[in-house]
Amino acid sequence: MTRPSNDSFLRALLRQPTEHTPIWLMRQAGRYLPEYCETRRRAGSFLQLCKSPTLACEVTLQPLARYDLDAAILFSDILTVPDAMGLGLYFTEGEGPRFERPLREEWAIRGLSAPDPWDHLRYVVDAVSEIRRALNQSVPLIGFAGSPYTLACYMIEGGASSDYRHIKAMLYNRPDLLHRILAVTADAVTAYLNAQIEAGAQAVMIFDSWGGSLSAAAYQEFSLAYTQRIVGNLHTESDGERVPSIVFTKGGGLWLESIADCGCDAIGVDWTIDIGEARRRVGDRVALQGNLDPGVLFASPERVAAEACKVLDSYGETPTGHIFNLGHGISQFTPPESVQALVDAVHRHSRWLRKKTPETSIRS
Amino acid sequence: MTRPSNDSFLRALLRQPTEHTPIWLMRQAGRYLPEYCETRRRAGSFLQLCKSPTLACEVTLQPLARYDLDAAILFSDILTVPDAMGLGLYFTEGEGPRFERPLREEWAIRGLSAPDPWDHLRYVVDAVSEIRRALNQSVPLIGFAGSPYTLACYMIEGGASSDYRHIKAMLYNRPDLLHRILAVTADAVTAYLNAQIEAGAQAVMIFDSWGGSLSAAAYQEFSLAYTQRIVGNLHTESDGERVPSIVFTKGGGLWLESIADCGCDAIGVDWTIDIGEARRRVGDRVALQGNLDPGVLFASPERVAAEACKVLDSYGETPTGHIFNLGHGISQFTPPESVQALVDAVHRHSRWLRKKTPETSIRS
Repeated sequence: MTRPSNDSFLRALLRQPTEHTPIWLMRQAGRYLPEYCETRRRAGSFLQLCKSPTLACEVTLQPLARYDLDAAILFSDILTVPDAMGLGLYFTEGEGPRFERPLREEWAIRGLSAPDPWDHLRYVVDAVSEIRRALNQSVPLIGFAGSPYTLACYMIEGGASSDYRHIKAMLYNRPDLLHRILAVTADAVTAYLNAQIEAGAQAVMIFDSWGGSLSAAAYQEFSLAYTQRIVGNLHTESDGERVPSIVFTKGGGLWLESIADCGCDAIGVDWTIDIGEARRRVGDRVALQGNLDPGVLFASPERVAAEACKVLDSYGETPTGHIFNLGHGISQFTPPESVQALVDAVHRHSRWLRKKTPETSIRS
Repeated sequence: MTRPSNDSFLRALLRQPTEHTPIWLMRQAGRYLPEYCETRRRAGSFLQLCKSPTLACEVTLQPLARYDLDAAILFSDILTVPDAMGLGLYFTEGEGPRFERPLREEWAIRGLSAPDPWDHLRYVVDAVSEIRRALNQSVPLIGFAGSPYTLACYMIEGGASSDYRHIKAMLYNRPDLLHRILAVTADAVTAYLNAQIEAGAQAVMIFDSWGGSLSAAAYQEFSLAYTQRIVGNLHTESDGERVPSIVFTKGGGLWLESIADCGCDAIGVDWTIDIGEARRRVGDRVALQGNLDPGVLFASPERVAAEACKVLDSYGETPTGHIFNLGHGISQFTPPESVQALVDAVHRHSRWLRKKTPETSIRS
């Protein structure tokens, strides 16, 4: 009874038939939308926008008012968790997120503990409840968090990095310290995602933005192992409904088989792999989410539609288990009309594909 | 008779037996070396250093004086080619290379032509001759160039980019214009590499630093096709000796099979793929160069040695066709003693591996 009226996203995550291929976009509430920029201006700063449940709810709903998207995603930032762990998050113009107290000293690492999300991240939990109420069972709400390795990159480097030299030095010199950070962060993320689920998130996604900067062996040990630990400890049901999980490792195309074995329901894939090839590699173990190059959205609406159809065609003629998305967050320079063209093309072409192979249509 | 006394690098590229696994490092002449910083200061700027054959020769030889490396690589920059095409290269502190005249207008693209390297890039040709003389047949000299797609990224964006939005817009909206840029650039790179070979380069490498930002299909059409065209038109011999070619696509691990079919003798691989798996995938079609994470060099000398041994062990017990390298250029923050530990470990451990399987040792 708590199913949204449009449950195509949840059904696709569980590899059940749907009438069309559902679509949502990573960072769909963002700077490419003038109404987002207006709300952000009103909030004063990005961080104040994240910390206000009312304004976070407002921007979460903005893309849904414009486009026929099949899911909403909580508006927040992955760095709220290390902020709640006491690192002091702030944003600089042009340089992005920074931490006042990067985590490099052994004493600080030993003192790290997982925050109670109902206390230190209450503003996120409240935003989830508020968004869920505002959505009024129209489409499902996705909760999310960063992967422990990705969060540790920011925590140790103190911000974005091009060479990850502090975390790489720790990884190779003091793996015990990095494992300690990752273990505490995995606990923090688990509690955080479970709080989001309790507050109403109907699916959750783990963003491993920087796992792709690791060697094949280090990825298994320092990134995927902790993502797996989180996935294994998530609430799998809420209000009697399954709460599916999605794991997205940017640049993880070489490791799809092992990601598919981590216990998640779906894998997000970036655009460097052909999605048909990704499907052949993971078989029917998981659903796939992706994978249009966000750069396509800089093209004309006609070309956007044509490229979207190529992704759908490549996924194949029995299109269960596919959630359409970009292979990475939408760029702030995207013309809003590109998104309109994309959503329309995905819905239209995926319905047509199902008519060609009617056995995959929804049976109700 | 023109073989260097240490020809292990050239032999490994041609998958012939060697007494040890040869090693050199991408960007081995660079800012991590105090003597390089001193010469660069003397030159006045990075660009003046590139444009002085005498100083370029000086810095090329610096790492060879310190370490027992098995190859030298011309000190230069991939952007000399677009600079010679009239785009006006300059360097800004902190922001890296920029072009005064980014290539975005149709009239400018129509007017583009491949420069004669013996005229507009004479300073590079002269540097190759001077370095070759100075090396005095000790180790081979590698010439290099950027791939057309990578050069086009810089030419169109006007510098480094995080989203490649101008080139992606052109790729999807006006592929004809991008193909024109890539065709002219491929001609320019072919002539440039052939001039380096005529001046004494004994192997050549094509750096495709940004091909990994493309979708699987776009990579084939806009990057690999042009690299293949270059490889097919390179001089394959000089002074009666084969001049092998290496193609390195950063982030190209998913596409190794098609890169192996482009006509090159060796593929450079970054550290995201296990080199043993890469070897199984390409079989005996090409040699492999790589693939230690440059981040390992931030660790202790003991740990550097241990990680180097893991790469050698993963490549396997019949170690023909392997050239040891990093998976990307060495970081300016690398302690010079890490490189010493790396070179020693690679030579020592690879000799030991050959003793275990003596049939792979050099015969004669």
